[in-house]
Amino acid sequence: MCQLLGMNCNTPTDIVFSFEGFRKRGGLTDHHTDGFGIGFFEERGLRLFLDDKPSIESPIADLVRTYQIKSKNVIAHIRKATQGRTTLENTHPFQRELWGQYWLFAHNGNLRGFTPHIGQYYRPVGNTDSEWAFCFILEQLRLHFTEKPSHEVLFDVINELCCKLREYGLFNMILSNGEVMFAHASTLLYYTIRQAPFGEAHLIDDNVAIDFAQITTPNDRVAVIATLPLTHNEQWTQLACNELLMFEDGKPIRQSLPENPQYLSQKEGLAIARAAGVSI
Amino acid sequence: MCQLLGMNCNTPTDIVFSFEGFRKRGGLTDHHTDGFGIGFFEERGLRLFLDDKPSIESPIADLVRTYQIKSKNVIAHIRKATQGRTTLENTHPFQRELWGQYWLFAHNGNLRGFTPHIGQYYRPVGNTDSEWAFCFILEQLRLHFTEKPSHEVLFDVINELCCKLREYGLFNMILSNGEVMFAHASTLLYYTIRQAPFGEAHLIDDNVAIDFAQITTPNDRVAVIATLPLTHNEQWTQLACNELLMFEDGKPIRQSLPENPQYLSQKEGLAIARAAGVSI
Repeated sequence: MCQLLGMNCNTPTDIVFSFEGFRKRGGLTDHHTDGFGIGFFEERGLRLFLDDKPSIESPIADLVRTYQIKSKNVIAHIRKATQGRTTLENTHPFQRELWGQYWLFAHNGNLRGFTPHIGQYYRPVGNTDSEWAFCFILEQLRLHFTEKPSHEVLFDVINELCCKLREYGLFNMILSNGEVMFAHASTLLYYTIRQAPFGEAHLIDDNVAIDFAQITTPNDRVAVIATLPLTHNEQWTQLACNELLMFEDGKPIRQSLPENPQYLSQKEGLAIARAAGVSI
Repeated sequence: MCQLLGMNCNTPTDIVFSFEGFRKRGGLTDHHTDGFGIGFFEERGLRLFLDDKPSIESPIADLVRTYQIKSKNVIAHIRKATQGRTTLENTHPFQRELWGQYWLFAHNGNLRGFTPHIGQYYRPVGNTDSEWAFCFILEQLRLHFTEKPSHEVLFDVINELCCKLREYGLFNMILSNGEVMFAHASTLLYYTIRQAPFGEAHLIDDNVAIDFAQITTPNDRVAVIATLPLTHNEQWTQLACNELLMFEDGKPIRQSLPENPQYLSQKEGLAIARAAGVSI
């Protein structure tokens, strides 16, 4: 298993503060030592950094800190391998092109016995359940639609696909086409919205605080999504088990909440993951 | 237009020495100031660094130097824009997946009036003639073959596709699937083979020399391909106009040489490029 980080904003924003806490989990405050990756959408382009070194000692992670790339949609992932060797081709996030847009996907979980037919349009390069799931989602979207449908229609289809995938096991994931960001929880996933009036936030994994009021404008809005909350003194909202959210411009705009929403405690979520043979 | 750099080896090798000379052309010894990119195959995985900053001042280019990634297949590109804005989505090399392998492509040239139908399998994300050409090649390969054919068959089909593409203008390119590397020249493209007995090489663009005998084993073999020779005191072989070469394990293994091969002088090659509205 592994941890997920997503950021969706209404204006290009750097993710350095949140990423600093997150990357500490890659070998320092936690044990996600099997590589990491982070992808930044910049207009239609995508800049994806992958490393099979632990994020805490990765020069690529250092670069992310010093470069301060600004982006409206970012997905990052630190990995503790459950399926597949620790190789570059198995390192999340995964990238493909669909309808003339890049798509980026990272998964936290473990799908057992998920062996779809090899797609007509999309095939995994590595051998993880995660890349298979990503290719399955894109294949189904491409089979359903020759051209990109509305985000509302996309949401409904992706919700159905998440339903199918979670039959095979834990499927916490973040997916984006650079315009909207989808977040689906099987067990643990949280988000916070940073917007005016901005205040101070303090990282859980590092002795670092930031006063967002100093570096933002009143119109900025940023949604940060993570497996576990990254900061003290910010309000983190938990996704229910089997909930899908779609974010645009730094806020959730569609929600598929189960009828009787269930929220796991962090202890329960970690126990379920462990029982499934995975670790957060 | 722009400059190309490719490396194909029989053992994972770092490209730092060649890249140091090459990147100097991105803003220092030359004027390729519209971004750069470099992609490294590592087993089945692909690590692609893109930057819309000039290579000479790019922190990502600095990272390439310090990280010393070892790879059997590398493609790099520095860009002087002729078509398309200088944005990340228009930055070479371009990456796609075909038959469960990543493919990487960089182009130096200018295709005029090349407007193929939108593909069933591959679509450009940006708006360069280069990405259209890449998508066209992959689309045709995918339409011809559901599964990957032999490298010999691949060579013949790619040779036909290069024929078609050069009807539209200058088409110097390097293409790889991480196993073999294809190099096609319309005007200027050179390669050198580094193998035992290794000697000293001296960069043209920088006051740096290297003694390969100190850092290699007797079995190492490396082919370096570039728009213009990168070193003094190495033997660079020029590709003929309209020649396609396929490299594997650090040497050319297939060649499609025109009946009456024509070799441009660097002056002629640069003049033709300029007349076509592009600059090397």
